Amino acid sequence: CQYWKKASDPNCDSERYTLYMEWARFLRFYKEQPLDLIRKYYGEKIGIYFAWLGFYTEMLFLAAVVGLICFLYGLFTVDENMSSKEICDPAIGGEIIMCPLCDRDCEYWRLNTTCVSSRYSHMFDNVATLFFAIFMGIWVTLFLEFWKRQQARLKYEWDLVDFEEEQLQLQLRPEYEAKCTQKKRNPVTQETEPYLPLTSQAVRFCISGATVLFWVSLIIASMIAVIVYRLAVYAAFASLMENTQTLEPISGLLTPQLATSVTASCLNFVIIMILNFFYERIAIWITDMGKQGYLLEGKTCKESLKIPLNTIKVFRAVVLNSGTVGACDPAGCLIEMTTQLTIVMAGKQIWGNIQEAIVPWICNWWGHRKARNNPENLYSRWEQDHDLQTFGALGLFYEYLEMVIQFGFITLFVASFPLAPLLALMNNILEIRVDSWKLTTQYRRPVAAKAHSIGVWQEILNGMAILSVVTNAFIVAFTSDMIPRLVYYYAYSENEDSPMSGYINNSLSVFQISDFPERNEPNKNPENFVICRYRDYRYPPDHERKYLHTMQFWHILAAKLAFIIIMEHVVFIVKFFVAWMIPDVPADVKAKIKCEKYLTQKILHEYELEKLKERLCQGDNGATEKEFIATEGRMELSRAM
Amino acid sequence: CQYWKKASDPNCDSERYTLYMEWARFLRFYKEQPLDLIRKYYGEKIGIYFAWLGFYTEMLFLAAVVGLICFLYGLFTVDENMSSKEICDPAIGGEIIMCPLCDRDCEYWRLNTTCVSSRYSHMFDNVATLFFAIFMGIWVTLFLEFWKRQQARLKYEWDLVDFEEEQLQLQLRPEYEAKCTQKKRNPVTQETEPYLPLTSQAVRFCISGATVLFWVSLIIASMIAVIVYRLAVYAAFASLMENTQTLEPISGLLTPQLATSVTASCLNFVIIMILNFFYERIAIWITDMGKQGYLLEGKTCKESLKIPLNTIKVFRAVVLNSGTVGACDPAGCLIEMTTQLTIVMAGKQIWGNIQEAIVPWICNWWGHRKARNNPENLYSRWEQDHDLQTFGALGLFYEYLEMVIQFGFITLFVASFPLAPLLALMNNILEIRVDSWKLTTQYRRPVAAKAHSIGVWQEILNGMAILSVVTNAFIVAFTSDMIPRLVYYYAYSENEDSPMSGYINNSLSVFQISDFPERNEPNKNPENFVICRYRDYRYPPDHERKYLHTMQFWHILAAKLAFIIIMEHVVFIVKFFVAWMIPDVPADVKAKIKCEKYLTQKILHEYELEKLKERLCQGDNGATEKEFIATEGRMELSRAM
Repeated sequence: CQYWKKASDPNCDSERYTLYMEWARFLRFYKEQPLDLIRKYYGEKIGIYFAWLGFYTEMLFLAAVVGLICFLYGLFTVDENMSSKEICDPAIGGEIIMCPLCDRDCEYWRLNTTCVSSRYSHMFDNVATLFFAIFMGIWVTLFLEFWKRQQARLKYEWDLVDFEEEQLQLQLRPEYEAKCTQKKRNPVTQETEPYLPLTSQAVRFCISGATVLFWVSLIIASMIAVIVYRLAVYAAFASLMENTQTLEPISGLLTPQLATSVTASCLNFVIIMILNFFYERIAIWITDMGKQGYLLEGKTCKESLKIPLNTIKVFRAVVLNSGTVGACDPAGCLIEMTTQLTIVMAGKQIWGNIQEAIVPWICNWWGHRKARNNPENLYSRWEQDHDLQTFGALGLFYEYLEMVIQFGFITLFVASFPLAPLLALMNNILEIRVDSWKLTTQYRRPVAAKAHSIGVWQEILNGMAILSVVTNAFIVAFTSDMIPRLVYYYAYSENEDSPMSGYINNSLSVFQISDFPERNEPNKNPENFVICRYRDYRYPPDHERKYLHTMQFWHILAAKLAFIIIMEHVVFIVKFFVAWMIPDVPADVKAKIKCEKYLTQKILHEYELEKLKERLCQGDNGATEKEFIATEGRMELSRAM
Repeated sequence: CQYWKKASDPNCDSERYTLYMEWARFLRFYKEQPLDLIRKYYGEKIGIYFAWLGFYTEMLFLAAVVGLICFLYGLFTVDENMSSKEICDPAIGGEIIMCPLCDRDCEYWRLNTTCVSSRYSHMFDNVATLFFAIFMGIWVTLFLEFWKRQQARLKYEWDLVDFEEEQLQLQLRPEYEAKCTQKKRNPVTQETEPYLPLTSQAVRFCISGATVLFWVSLIIASMIAVIVYRLAVYAAFASLMENTQTLEPISGLLTPQLATSVTASCLNFVIIMILNFFYERIAIWITDMGKQGYLLEGKTCKESLKIPLNTIKVFRAVVLNSGTVGACDPAGCLIEMTTQLTIVMAGKQIWGNIQEAIVPWICNWWGHRKARNNPENLYSRWEQDHDLQTFGALGLFYEYLEMVIQFGFITLFVASFPLAPLLALMNNILEIRVDSWKLTTQYRRPVAAKAHSIGVWQEILNGMAILSVVTNAFIVAFTSDMIPRLVYYYAYSENEDSPMSGYINNSLSVFQISDFPERNEPNKNPENFVICRYRDYRYPPDHERKYLHTMQFWHILAAKLAFIIIMEHVVFIVKFFVAWMIPDVPADVKAKIKCEKYLTQKILHEYELEKLKERLCQGDNGATEKEFIATEGRMELSRAM
């Protein structure tokens, strides 16, 4: 009989059982979490994590709804979209011969083969994308500001106003103490403490640094590998599809681009998972030999190494994307990124939940195997409890990390995938219950710890909020097709009735096939095409500045850069204004804290007064009369508080 | 006999006299200020102002030296500058006929008339400008970060660690109390207090808001007026100089542009001063009727109104400049801005010092006039003291404001004038002694007040530091001539031996004089010119896209915008990194604060232990043994601190 079965026994009416019934079951997902009970049973540190997770999930609801509306807007306006209409039109898109996308083995292709993917692309690349990118920039600020208020309220209600994080958590790690041979005077306590000499510290620092560098270069190498893979696979797919004519009916959707993108994303995801696995082991090893002797729960050495690497990990998506811009879909590059992010994000979340729930369950199942052989009365309560998994100091770290990476996906790249918040919302509704189920049934009760905030994570979220404005501005400017379309609309369109008509033709430059160098020339040219088209703004072969950038290229580039500058400045100004407008501590909480301070002073004052009066009665006049006045004066001041 | 004469009497050895001798005399300018004595005599609030002013002046030294080096670089490379060489060359600049700079009354002019001013312009507009703009972006961060450390040290040394600003300074203003008819319960003290009903508050808020709006529009109107004035005066100067051939020898320097710029700057300065004068009165009136009943010394209503208006004031220079870009010197627009800033800044500083020193001196001279009639023994010491000026709550506000506006000049517009920090340094060396002389001889001793920081000014300086990166990036991109020159160098230059030759010719477009509309056509064309040149990148009249922007225009625009993006992102990343690297509190101060806290806890602990031991000895065993263990445990924790 396992612990959670015992927990579900109605006779054993414990706090843990209440938590299991009211909090840890999935069917309670619509209910608020019993935060005060969580705090009472697990301590403030775990309590504040669940408070944050719950608040984040609530705020995600707003973002998910707006994201869904933006997506639906794209879905319903897909038929009005001139670009995909022209691409799909056999008289326009069908007549445009595109240049091969790789050397030698790729073939010439007609633009209308990308008809379906251009329609699909419009769903994510339209005016709503820009609106949503700006909206999310402000949403992030609102989220962080309102969380500060929520946290201040919890801090008051959980009696943490005077608590300082540092006071409790500095303990010398025993492993470290054993290794140190020299001793030094601690400047605070004036006691001698074990101490690692500086040279030894430097050596260890160098080794740690070298390891981190090695991992960073490994990650960069894997990025390059994926880019190379994409190019290779693209060529393979292209010739494969050419040969197997049976695929014809779905080849509209399954273009070589899409196929490459999907497989590369999967590969990318697998590499992330493998590197993650090894990285954790390395990080623990570095911590063990780390120069940091104190076991700072809030910020271990491992943690401080982990953070830069995760930033790199999140950034890989961008780099990977930029490695393929040249070869992306004629309907715009955004769709590439959307596909990739969807796969990585969904994969990570599904995998994360499986890992979190299944792994401890299997461990416990294995640990409890003796229970299956022994009768229950011989497998005592305390043995069963002891055989549960331990929820160490790093347990909460991983929970936060998972959520912060998710937060990165929905803020940093939201312009390329408006459904990301919806995905995150669904994951988090599940996540809260999986985490609570795990804690109430699969883990020993952890040692309760105090915490008055989410600590260093707050700063990381702030950093992401700032970075997200920059990344989204760049995504809208460079991967979406919006700016070139607007420039065409306002400056180059010649048809006044339908200003967007002719855009596709305008956005494709002309290449003379006879200009191909021999070693790059495609093998097959069955229809003897003379020219082919490619996505760029360059002069045609009959122009004196043949293949150099046209004025429209520089015009569009200036527009893109101007867009980045305007969007960044506007969103940052709004963000700072919003952050400045919303007070960090709610007014009623502030008044309550002041009121309590005032009461404390009042009681102290009355006590002092009482004592003075006694002394005055006993005839000790001279000095005390002055003291009496001074005390009254202090009271006057504190009343003004 | 006036107070300061008394103070300089060697017989009266007071603190004030020591301050006067050691601090307030200009010849002590090379010495450190006696901050501890200032604090002892004037209180922490004034002490921290002088500490800040001294620190700022020290940091300015570095900026002034680098600025001077940048200026000298410009000065010594002026002969190598290709643009001004070409402008001055009679065979190049002498042959280029420029279009008139205003309608009808202006004349055609030869480019080499601006020879001297183009050389002068190079001193401020060269590669060193860019370097200095970036350097100042980082200098500002260093200044703010090191000040935080300095402040933390003062806070510890002056025993302000546990002091909270709010505790002391909230007092109900009597004027406000008198006006309120209703009463309300204060949520903190639970006592009834006078209270202004919400409707009345709203009315007052609207009136205040309307007044502020009125002033903002007045300032905008004055900006427009100055722009109109510039255009009008420019035409007048141009025809004046044409008529008075006697000015010929100096007309190389005194171009119409420069003359307009100088007079407009002076006008601008006068307007700033007049508006300032009225604005102060209005601000006091608003405060009087303000909804804010509490007299918060750190941040009065007046102050909170003053800040946005000062920001606007500082920004006027930029707007004024942009109003004249079309008509600025062919050597670049930066020189316009430099002239304007120099005049406004120098004028403000000289005027500021005169006002600060002379005004109270005259007031005292007037106030002491009875002393001149009475023999000294009838004009008593306390009468003399009482007749001195009062240094009210707003006294320090104006001192800070003056310095913050100066800080704005040297950070926000530093790219256009590298000598600004030197000017500020010289002013501040004087300023410290003027302020101290004023305080020790012209003012009554103010009521000492506590303060642990420079308060709201810190946030304003932070805001300016961020804004300065943006303004300097825009100044370098749009008013300096650097980007067009670089684009020419890398993309359009045809002469490989001397890549910058031909730049002037390339940067001027061609206009066919017969294309002038009749009402704009210049009156005089004695030499019957057919074409004239103007500063822009547009197609010549014989091109099919006549007078439309050329590709080079869009190319340069893209380069300018790219420069802004790159410079902003790089400088911000470096800023955040530097700010993150430098701890806000010096390590030794942190250790001392912790050590003191530890000692307090130790003493408390020993006292408690002593009491417990006594009780144990008296045989009260049961409960106290547990308490003993608990106390030991607490001690264990606090040791880890």
